[in-house]
Amino acid sequence: MALTPTVQSTLTRHQAAINEALHTAIAKVAANPGTSDLQPFYGQMQYHLGWVDNEYTPITNNPGKLLRPTLLLLAYEAAGAWGLATAKTDYLRRALPAAAAIELTHNFTLIHDDIEDGDTERRHRSTLWKLWGIPQAINTGDGLFALARLTLWDVVDEGVAGAIAARLGAILDRACLVLSEGQYLDISFEGRQNISVAMYLDMISRKTGALMGSAAEMGALLGTSDQETMRRLRSFGDAMGVAFQVRDDLLGVWASTAELGKTPAGDVYRRKKSLPFLHALEHADAPDQHHLQQLYQQKAPITDTQVDEVLAIFARTHSKVYCQTFLADQCRLAHEALASVPRANSPVAARALGDMETLVHFVEEATR
Amino acid sequence: MALTPTVQSTLTRHQAAINEALHTAIAKVAANPGTSDLQPFYGQMQYHLGWVDNEYTPITNNPGKLLRPTLLLLAYEAAGAWGLATAKTDYLRRALPAAAAIELTHNFTLIHDDIEDGDTERRHRSTLWKLWGIPQAINTGDGLFALARLTLWDVVDEGVAGAIAARLGAILDRACLVLSEGQYLDISFEGRQNISVAMYLDMISRKTGALMGSAAEMGALLGTSDQETMRRLRSFGDAMGVAFQVRDDLLGVWASTAELGKTPAGDVYRRKKSLPFLHALEHADAPDQHHLQQLYQQKAPITDTQVDEVLAIFARTHSKVYCQTFLADQCRLAHEALASVPRANSPVAARALGDMETLVHFVEEATR
Repeated sequence: MALTPTVQSTLTRHQAAINEALHTAIAKVAANPGTSDLQPFYGQMQYHLGWVDNEYTPITNNPGKLLRPTLLLLAYEAAGAWGLATAKTDYLRRALPAAAAIELTHNFTLIHDDIEDGDTERRHRSTLWKLWGIPQAINTGDGLFALARLTLWDVVDEGVAGAIAARLGAILDRACLVLSEGQYLDISFEGRQNISVAMYLDMISRKTGALMGSAAEMGALLGTSDQETMRRLRSFGDAMGVAFQVRDDLLGVWASTAELGKTPAGDVYRRKKSLPFLHALEHADAPDQHHLQQLYQQKAPITDTQVDEVLAIFARTHSKVYCQTFLADQCRLAHEALASVPRANSPVAARALGDMETLVHFVEEATR
Repeated sequence: MALTPTVQSTLTRHQAAINEALHTAIAKVAANPGTSDLQPFYGQMQYHLGWVDNEYTPITNNPGKLLRPTLLLLAYEAAGAWGLATAKTDYLRRALPAAAAIELTHNFTLIHDDIEDGDTERRHRSTLWKLWGIPQAINTGDGLFALARLTLWDVVDEGVAGAIAARLGAILDRACLVLSEGQYLDISFEGRQNISVAMYLDMISRKTGALMGSAAEMGALLGTSDQETMRRLRSFGDAMGVAFQVRDDLLGVWASTAELGKTPAGDVYRRKKSLPFLHALEHADAPDQHHLQQLYQQKAPITDTQVDEVLAIFARTHSKVYCQTFLADQCRLAHEALASVPRANSPVAARALGDMETLVHFVEEATR
């Protein structure tokens, strides 16, 4: 997604610290003192993260948005990080292993998703399974999943109580299970014609909501013992996860090239069964419904004229307005959750809450 | 493997309790209150565990050996479980979530191994990927991995301190990462001709030693705070993991039908590059080495006569004696580790140590 300067600065504030934590996490285990050459195993992880090329030579890369770990750190700051840390200038350290853990977890799911979806490219580079084969790519994903968890335990070295660490683990594990539930639904939808809007929304709340929600909850748990603050920041994360996905769905159909560098109606050309399509299918009259089904099932690629026909059906069912209203509702939930977070009396917390508002505004723009 | 009555009774003592813990773990998450039908997702897990058929109908099954959770519970008993529990008749409950976690973890690795190896059958039943496709099978494995970890946290409900729970999580995560390292090596060996005995032993110590070692260490940590006891029980588990694998390798070549219901020289027919083969390759003279390479690389299936030729080379390199000696060394390490565990003053600990000795004797028999 293209980012406005304000949201860009929100997302980059913790970027360097998160990236360092990610590098540390891999370096700790990749430095293998044993007899075996494990470089290709850890090299695959580094390739996936964009740090090396396919011969394990370091490359300069554009670090990703790091949205989930940023959310974790913002929730940590908003919940009272400043007050808890002993060395106040370096309060971030306590939460960085958890931030790295959530980003590594996200990346493990991407490695497996690429195999499951048969995608050969990600961010204009070959996917892991395409380069190293499915067996190694499955296994590297599993390794990254284990490493994510292992990295989390480093919070104990940063002074977090063991009991809190165990709760962090439980939140992350729950999110991973729910994420797998969502992925099961997503894969099972592929061969089905009767996916309802309700089923789709349930799927995305599991597949994308759960991990963002848990990122915010983990950050909150690191910053406070107040259950209410945790609950509210969790709600914020859940809503944002769903909102980001619906925003993608909206822009996948109605973004102009100028707006995002995306092909207009790209998701229609790809015949992606995203929210606009499912809403239209549910609300179109019988002939439109039939036509829509036919166009999305035909073997031949969809033509420009047919894409226009689809967009005309979407217009008749007011599917854009529906998606915008749904997104606005999620953003309202996110705003309300933030507004109800007890104001910690620190500039750090105030800035973090402001940054989170910026993120909501950024997502909200797609409703206009 | 066929079991003698003594080892059978050792392995069955905790079987019912472990099975109940496994069923509880799945039931807790499979009872889904949401709108989506997740039965096929959890049903795949239940199918893999042998509880239901491919239409999710319950079947009576032969519960597996449950070797790893049994080892965990025995280590727990040996380390002082009896003394720590408040309700002495039910001391096992404290450790059962960890036992279930280690068995679920083991099963997740089997689901992914079957995809990675292209195996269509396991225990005379179709594998998950064969029935539900690779994408769903990868994802179900991931879900089971997450569920394993989630199950572990139930120890906190059984009175285990949060800080201990976090240490249990770290031990399990470390084992999973090392296991992935081992699997990376195993897959990478397939296309290579120059695997040394040292490389193979390093691979199996990661792929099979790590999880057994961690099972014993986790059990010990639940039963004692004494570092030395933990270290010794961990050594016991590490040695047993490697010993079980080398025993399999030995029996895969030299077991008689009567002994184990296995095809004699089954691993030679399958041209498995297990320890006997790698040892022979390293120690054979040039003509034998060449012949061995040729037979294991030829496209045509290996004939009975050729199998006899391979066995004759193994005889010339004394590979059976080598494997037996190596196995005896591992068993000696296991015995020494057990002998050095401080004797807890309880009949429960004494019986557990006796049971562990029985397991070593059972593995040792393959050396005779």
